[in-house]
Amino acid sequence: MPSLRAHVFRVPAGSPDDVTGVEALFAGLVDASDVVAVLGKTEGNGCVNDFTRGYATRSFERLFDEQDVEGVSIVMSGGTEGALSPHWTIFTRKQVEEPGEGALAIGVARTPALPPEQLGRREQVRMVAAAVKAAIRDAGIEDAADVHFVQIKCPLLTSERIADAESAGKTTATRDTLKSMALSRGASALGVAVALGEVDIDAIDDTDICSRFDLYSRCASASSGVELLDHEVIVLGMSAKWSGPLTIDHAVMRDAIDTGSVRAAWDRLPAEGRLAAVLAKAEPDPSGHVGGRRHTMLNDSDLAGTRHARAFVGGVLAGVFGMTDLYVSGGAEHQGPPGGGPVAIIVEKGDLK
Amino acid sequence: MPSLRAHVFRVPAGSPDDVTGVEALFAGLVDASDVVAVLGKTEGNGCVNDFTRGYATRSFERLFDEQDVEGVSIVMSGGTEGALSPHWTIFTRKQVEEPGEGALAIGVARTPALPPEQLGRREQVRMVAAAVKAAIRDAGIEDAADVHFVQIKCPLLTSERIADAESAGKTTATRDTLKSMALSRGASALGVAVALGEVDIDAIDDTDICSRFDLYSRCASASSGVELLDHEVIVLGMSAKWSGPLTIDHAVMRDAIDTGSVRAAWDRLPAEGRLAAVLAKAEPDPSGHVGGRRHTMLNDSDLAGTRHARAFVGGVLAGVFGMTDLYVSGGAEHQGPPGGGPVAIIVEKGDLK
Amino acid sequence: MPSLRAHVFRVPAGSPDDVTGVEALFAGLVDASDVVAVLGKTEGNGCVNDFTRGYATRSFERLFDEQDVEGVSIVMSGGTEGALSPHWTIFTRKQVEEPGEGALAIGVARTPALPPEQLGRREQVRMVAAAVKAAIRDAGIEDAADVHFVQIKCPLLTSERIADAESAGKTTATRDTLKSMALSRGASALGVAVALGEVDIDAIDDTDICSRFDLYSRCASASSGVELLDHEVIVLGMSAKWSGPLTIDHAVMRDAIDTGSVRAAWDRLPAEGRLAAVLAKAEPDPSGHVGGRRHTMLNDSDLAGTRHARAFVGGVLAGVFGMTDLYVSGGAEHQGPPGGGPVAIIVEKGDLK
Amino acid sequence: MPSLRAHVFRVPAGSPDDVTGVEALFAGLVDASDVVAVLGKTEGNGCVNDFTRGYATRSFERLFDEQDVEGVSIVMSGGTEGALSPHWTIFTRKQVEEPGEGALAIGVARTPALPPEQLGRREQVRMVAAAVKAAIRDAGIEDAADVHFVQIKCPLLTSERIADAESAGKTTATRDTLKSMALSRGASALGVAVALGEVDIDAIDDTDICSRFDLYSRCASASSGVELLDHEVIVLGMSAKWSGPLTIDHAVMRDAIDTGSVRAAWDRLPAEGRLAAVLAKAEPDPSGHVGGRRHTMLNDSDLAGTRHARAFVGGVLAGVFGMTDLYVSGGAEHQGPPGGGPVAIIVEKGDLK
Repeated sequence: MPSLRAHVFRVPAGSPDDVTGVEALFAGLVDASDVVAVLGKTEGNGCVNDFTRGYATRSFERLFDEQDVEGVSIVMSGGTEGALSPHWTIFTRKQVEEPGEGALAIGVARTPALPPEQLGRREQVRMVAAAVKAAIRDAGIEDAADVHFVQIKCPLLTSERIADAESAGKTTATRDTLKSMALSRGASALGVAVALGEVDIDAIDDTDICSRFDLYSRCASASSGVELLDHEVIVLGMSAKWSGPLTIDHAVMRDAIDTGSVRAAWDRLPAEGRLAAVLAKAEPDPSGHVGGRRHTMLNDSDLAGTRHARAFVGGVLAGVFGMTDLYVSGGAEHQGPPGGGPVAIIVEKGDLK
Repeated sequence: MPSLRAHVFRVPAGSPDDVTGVEALFAGLVDASDVVAVLGKTEGNGCVNDFTRGYATRSFERLFDEQDVEGVSIVMSGGTEGALSPHWTIFTRKQVEEPGEGALAIGVARTPALPPEQLGRREQVRMVAAAVKAAIRDAGIEDAADVHFVQIKCPLLTSERIADAESAGKTTATRDTLKSMALSRGASALGVAVALGEVDIDAIDDTDICSRFDLYSRCASASSGVELLDHEVIVLGMSAKWSGPLTIDHAVMRDAIDTGSVRAAWDRLPAEGRLAAVLAKAEPDPSGHVGGRRHTMLNDSDLAGTRHARAFVGGVLAGVFGMTDLYVSGGAEHQGPPGGGPVAIIVEKGDLK
Repeated sequence: MPSLRAHVFRVPAGSPDDVTGVEALFAGLVDASDVVAVLGKTEGNGCVNDFTRGYATRSFERLFDEQDVEGVSIVMSGGTEGALSPHWTIFTRKQVEEPGEGALAIGVARTPALPPEQLGRREQVRMVAAAVKAAIRDAGIEDAADVHFVQIKCPLLTSERIADAESAGKTTATRDTLKSMALSRGASALGVAVALGEVDIDAIDDTDICSRFDLYSRCASASSGVELLDHEVIVLGMSAKWSGPLTIDHAVMRDAIDTGSVRAAWDRLPAEGRLAAVLAKAEPDPSGHVGGRRHTMLNDSDLAGTRHARAFVGGVLAGVFGMTDLYVSGGAEHQGPPGGGPVAIIVEKGDLK
Repeated sequence: MPSLRAHVFRVPAGSPDDVTGVEALFAGLVDASDVVAVLGKTEGNGCVNDFTRGYATRSFERLFDEQDVEGVSIVMSGGTEGALSPHWTIFTRKQVEEPGEGALAIGVARTPALPPEQLGRREQVRMVAAAVKAAIRDAGIEDAADVHFVQIKCPLLTSERIADAESAGKTTATRDTLKSMALSRGASALGVAVALGEVDIDAIDDTDICSRFDLYSRCASASSGVELLDHEVIVLGMSAKWSGPLTIDHAVMRDAIDTGSVRAAWDRLPAEGRLAAVLAKAEPDPSGHVGGRRHTMLNDSDLAGTRHARAFVGGVLAGVFGMTDLYVSGGAEHQGPPGGGPVAIIVEKGDLK
């Protein structure tokens, strides 16, 4: 019986619109029509006015247009602080004749457009939960325990969108555009938690979103961006229906310097494996402390806390893994415990087939 | 025969003017008159308009005034990006009856005020080299190989100081105030290299400063600040004339993710030791790459490269050492190889005596 | 019958701790014990982690200590964006033998410390209103219509203060430290409005603060800062009990480019007068538009909206008045209409007496 | 005898890729093939890593592709600080049957790609001077005194371009990417000065560029950007060969608050005219002072001086003209006197024809 097979490629990006490395892949090893998802780290500020995400997204849309390929999930996360390196991670899937043996599985889904007044509220949680379930089915994963990373790209509020809602007599969850990014990530993460059975939807109030941080998903990763109005969902896990050299596991960092959990997860993966990708979330610890010592990320009005956190946790993980083209995304509300976050590790045994 | 003995205390700082933790030390274990140096990390931007350094310095000056103590070296380094924690490291030295056995040794020195037109030029290199030699003598260190860390606090140019020089018919090495910080650090580091015999003064041209990065000291650490016009020099090393529980060694990181060198240095120190202090320098790799991958620190006009580097290398080191009150200072021109930098580790065996 | 007489001095500041210009005043024309208030513009970011305000405040406290003067109101406003120039405005008052003739009058008051859980809520409004009434009495102003500017220095929340409140079982109005600055300014401004009879305290709900911007005071100016826990209140107006060459009036700018209102207010003042001080508030228009055109101040995650607003309105007013040592303070919630703000102008007829 | 005729349209931009307003023009009044130039203000930081310029340029390239129009000069200037509003200014020219009567004339030119090692040096000055002369001929302007504004879009150095030059054995004028923007603008402005006969090419040394600010053009405006490697040149002036309702004049601001020169230039234009466009340059005064008072723009390491200057001078000009969709570009090296800059005003008499 045939199976599905995933491959993962990390491609350097010279600028937000530099897709030449991916074009080279398409001219060689990779069939563009096999691409199911692109996760990018772009060199913007990762906050409200980060247009590098949209610029990169547009560049990939044009590339896939030229290749006559539709329906690829494109998720751009802004912010390559410190020595983090801008890059694209390309996920492909195709059917092969070999039988399933248990390997990395990938599924995707997309939600309808989110009305601005639903952002950061239970409606958003529900909408995302439904899409996560669809993506898990799309991946052929049968047990929620086999899901190791759920990437959500979610919208944010701009002052224009807030004004639109208000002129229609609606109120938005916040008028602060930067805060809307946090609320959107938080509600999306809770949507993952609901889909995976980690949290009961009936246990969540609107006011819990971005405040009751004891509610969280162990493997949600959400990025908000100005360039979309709906949600892109990408699920990564293990499935018996998939074959090939790739395996995934994940750690949940308890705080920003918890390298022990990360090393333990890496140790659970094949020892001889080559690192194919590391995907992680980072945030300023909402307690104001890491390891008992005060940090200043939440009091710095010159530099957003998410930028601080990406730079620092990027350093922690680069020190562990010895590479800088890591997908480290900022703002980990309800994504792992407060101040911590999920770290997915994909390892490839042997050579590319 | 009596010996000298050092102790080191890391004290949390709640704000740039919070010296209450040090006052508590003086009310208890520590005699204020034994203090020889204070190294602080304050929560400013670490760049030209970082007034937290001066604010902290002033607070310590008042504290020592109240204690009737004079001549303490006070070196403030701005920037606690990421989860780095603002703190003071207090160095004491006193004579004890026990004989010397080989232990951490501390020496200090101060230069005359540096005329603005000498900043970033050979005159500054010479001036610093002389003071470093004086501080090594003050520490009682006999072999340059026993010097493990030389901390310099050096001045910078403001637009006012540039104007003063120009109105006196002089030219300064740069008119860019942020760049003057780099030049001052670079010339100071070369001064250390000259004092330690690593580089010959005659091999250095004015134009080499901040350009010929193959010239460097393996253990210089320089911080520039608007709050002084001269240089504070603190030398840390091992000396047979000192006794007590503290030992120091240092690594030279080859690049921002070189944890191997750091772990090796730590392994050379007593295994059962408690970490007393970690002192390190960080900088954006001038090649634009770390580990073969592009970084964006040098192209980011919103966020100074030194802030990026402190946050990231702070993360790398916090991941290794499991603590966040590290002295990580930004801007490592001629301080270790390009993109790398020195990391001094002080370990304490057994209990405080 | 004797009267009171005010003088106003604008003194350049070379740095946040540069009080040499004021020392020179005290060595000459001015008796330090006549000083009733100091308003400063310091060169920090004007946001949460702006320590230049505290550094300046400390420097003035030391100066007045040395002069054996107590009880001076010291209000520091951070942020000299664009060509705005750091400076101190010194207000003196003393009794003179000449009879009252109607002139600039100054009064001050101070509140108790504000518990963190009251910040941004009705309790803060009430506390400030009481102090404003006290300051009006102190100024000898009998009609609220004669009040032209009420400057409040108010506290903010840091992550430490929030944690303190929460550990005591209290909730704060926000957990976002930058937002707490806005809430504190907003509640303080409504306190002015209540004291002046512009708004009824019973018409204000907690949720109206920083949301119902149709409620405002025509002459409130509030600055928040990390360096105090209570409120400093300074009232400026006209009183028949005062004499001397100074006169004050004020405009209410309708939006950020409303120079017409400013010119009209200036025209109401003595034509031959020398400008003694201009005091103004600025904010990013919460509508997202100025003059029908979109602005980007509220979507910029690199640069706080208050910094944008100070720079821009600083330019508007510097263009009108032809000088750059203006007191332009950012964040004008409930201080004038949304997007606009008060501008007080003090003019001096003839020579200094 | 027929003449040429220009029209100018200011179109709001909702985001860097929002060209819908221009599409609407093309669906109505304007023939896309008449467009000769687009000047845009985009909402980036205006510095090295401002990708909004490239994103906008790409969006216009696609729009003109769809319209089968080639050769339009597209110049994007980043930075809409304060209440400045993102917008596009569209310049059209076409032949009409009416005779020339003296009106706004527009000419364009483009240079070859600039090798990185020539940037900020005499070679760049020469290259730009030749293109400015070509654009003046293209505009049909016969007397240099009739040129009122010369807009140059010039390249900058990134760390990649510097590395390329160095690996080819060349040295660049600077290794500081932000400084390369200033050098490129400065050399371009001197190219204008040479073309207009204001400065003799033989009087310029490499070291004069960005240092001898007594050499300048009264009407040069240069913007650097990462999105091009050559130069776009747009010349605006008056020519007897053109007809229509548009007239242009310009002021040279002596400093950032010199509204007198601006008002005088406006007064020289038709009194009943509608403002069609205002184009200006702004910079932090290199003396560190404006109107005798210190500014802090050059000592602020959190916020680039060009951002400060655009916000402030944007406010000065918005206060004069009563509108916020002004083209204010930052960095005025050799563009007007130090600290000042050119301001071009285009006025339209009567109705659109």
